[in-house]
Amino acid sequence: MSNKKRVLIVGLGLLGGSYAMGLTQKGWQVDAIDVDEYAIAYAKELGIIQNGATVDFEEMIQAADRMIFALYPAAFVSWVEQYRHLFRKGVIFTDVSGVKCGIVQPIQAMLPEGVEFIPSHPMAGREVSGVQNANTEMFRPANFIITPTEKNTAAGLAFAQVIAEDLGFAHICRLTVEEHDRMIGYVSQLTHAIAVSLMCASDRTDLAEYTGDSFRDLTRIARINEVMWSELFLENREILIDEIDAFTDTLQKMKQHLHQQDRESLKQMFRTSTARRAAFDKKR
Amino acid sequence: MSNKKRVLIVGLGLLGGSYAMGLTQKGWQVDAIDVDEYAIAYAKELGIIQNGATVDFEEMIQAADRMIFALYPAAFVSWVEQYRHLFRKGVIFTDVSGVKCGIVQPIQAMLPEGVEFIPSHPMAGREVSGVQNANTEMFRPANFIITPTEKNTAAGLAFAQVIAEDLGFAHICRLTVEEHDRMIGYVSQLTHAIAVSLMCASDRTDLAEYTGDSFRDLTRIARINEVMWSELFLENREILIDEIDAFTDTLQKMKQHLHQQDRESLKQMFRTSTARRAAFDKKR
Repeated sequence: MSNKKRVLIVGLGLLGGSYAMGLTQKGWQVDAIDVDEYAIAYAKELGIIQNGATVDFEEMIQAADRMIFALYPAAFVSWVEQYRHLFRKGVIFTDVSGVKCGIVQPIQAMLPEGVEFIPSHPMAGREVSGVQNANTEMFRPANFIITPTEKNTAAGLAFAQVIAEDLGFAHICRLTVEEHDRMIGYVSQLTHAIAVSLMCASDRTDLAEYTGDSFRDLTRIARINEVMWSELFLENREILIDEIDAFTDTLQKMKQHLHQQDRESLKQMFRTSTARRAAFDKKR
Repeated sequence: MSNKKRVLIVGLGLLGGSYAMGLTQKGWQVDAIDVDEYAIAYAKELGIIQNGATVDFEEMIQAADRMIFALYPAAFVSWVEQYRHLFRKGVIFTDVSGVKCGIVQPIQAMLPEGVEFIPSHPMAGREVSGVQNANTEMFRPANFIITPTEKNTAAGLAFAQVIAEDLGFAHICRLTVEEHDRMIGYVSQLTHAIAVSLMCASDRTDLAEYTGDSFRDLTRIARINEVMWSELFLENREILIDEIDAFTDTLQKMKQHLHQQDRESLKQMFRTSTARRAAFDKKR
């Protein structure tokens, strides 16, 4: 037996594949399970996993000490429900889910004694999907957020930490599950909701030749994986609805200033936005 | 007398200074008028203008065959009103204003016989101001829009065209004044209104360390020159209010889908936004 670090990745899409690539480069032995034979064959061919399976993977699960679930949230919950009886005592696993409230408690509650789920969220992604787009560059500027609960141990935290370090994330931090979902509702989901709504409001593709950087920057994220994002939005819908309301109220205030030709109030909004946005540049 | 092309620039800020830089590089003799002695001195020192004045510039105006006004819209209108009696017969001038409806007709109506205003809009800018930030790089990927009316001549159009070509704009195109303002209301003003409202909705600067590229891209333009943008917004307020309404209606539809947990309608929005946004990538 070598004392190489080993990990089983369940779900070999863009994120699972990029994890496999980064961890293999760091000397881990990475095995993987996916529903897609092509994804497994591609990853083996590329050398970013050692063993892979689409069926008959019970022994791989039973042998795993460390696992990473790179599935969509609902699939993750049902996968654990279906296969948890195979998890060995002492196994520690993490995930990549972009929402936490609806996932962490149900999964931690259903686990057998001695099995630990340490939730984490790599805040990285691209407008493409699939293992064939795997790359580790997207981790370098990104945040890795660990959302431990009172059920987690030092060993669980250490596993999430070493994954994040070996993948080269720029920042590793901890939030509670609730803090995480509120933060995500604002910095990620609200911005995607806005970009999508802007594109859906009317078909203005005829204006493409006139658009500058500001329009392109603001709508880049309107190219969106509909299956994943509808799931993320619905999982976090109460928080996202609050954020949409707060934003809409402010945009309506701006509209009132325009109606009333209230130049001073408009200027005040521009001063506020300028000052706040500057803080986001400084802290980077 | 040399037969060098000569132009008088009125207003030596970021855009006026960048025009001066680009046209001087292309062999024009550029003279300038500004209220700020420092701006004139700086531009002469840098060699991007030949002569400059802050006062006693009547003879410069009288001598000018070609002029470019790089002033804010309201200042532009009142400047022309005050000094049009000095304009020589045959002079052709253009501007840089980001809105056209409230400016083009009043100015063309007040001009003496034989004086031509050919309106144009360089769709370039930065989050900084002043001649000390002048650069011509910002023109390379940008659109230059000429908005002629029935009062313009072939000579006027040719002047706007050569300015755009000599400054190196990527695309030069023509729109009517009304088409221009409607387009700008969508691709520029609405996006700025959204970014500003997002920053003003609540003070979330504590979240700066968690924000990724999508949030930063979407809010970059929330750092905004409050004097210029309040003027641009108010000049175009009716169109901008229409755009805010159309966008808000769509965002409210998304909120309803969230309330009703209507996954299929959410997915449909995401598919629409993805398809439309793809068109903006292709056409570039």
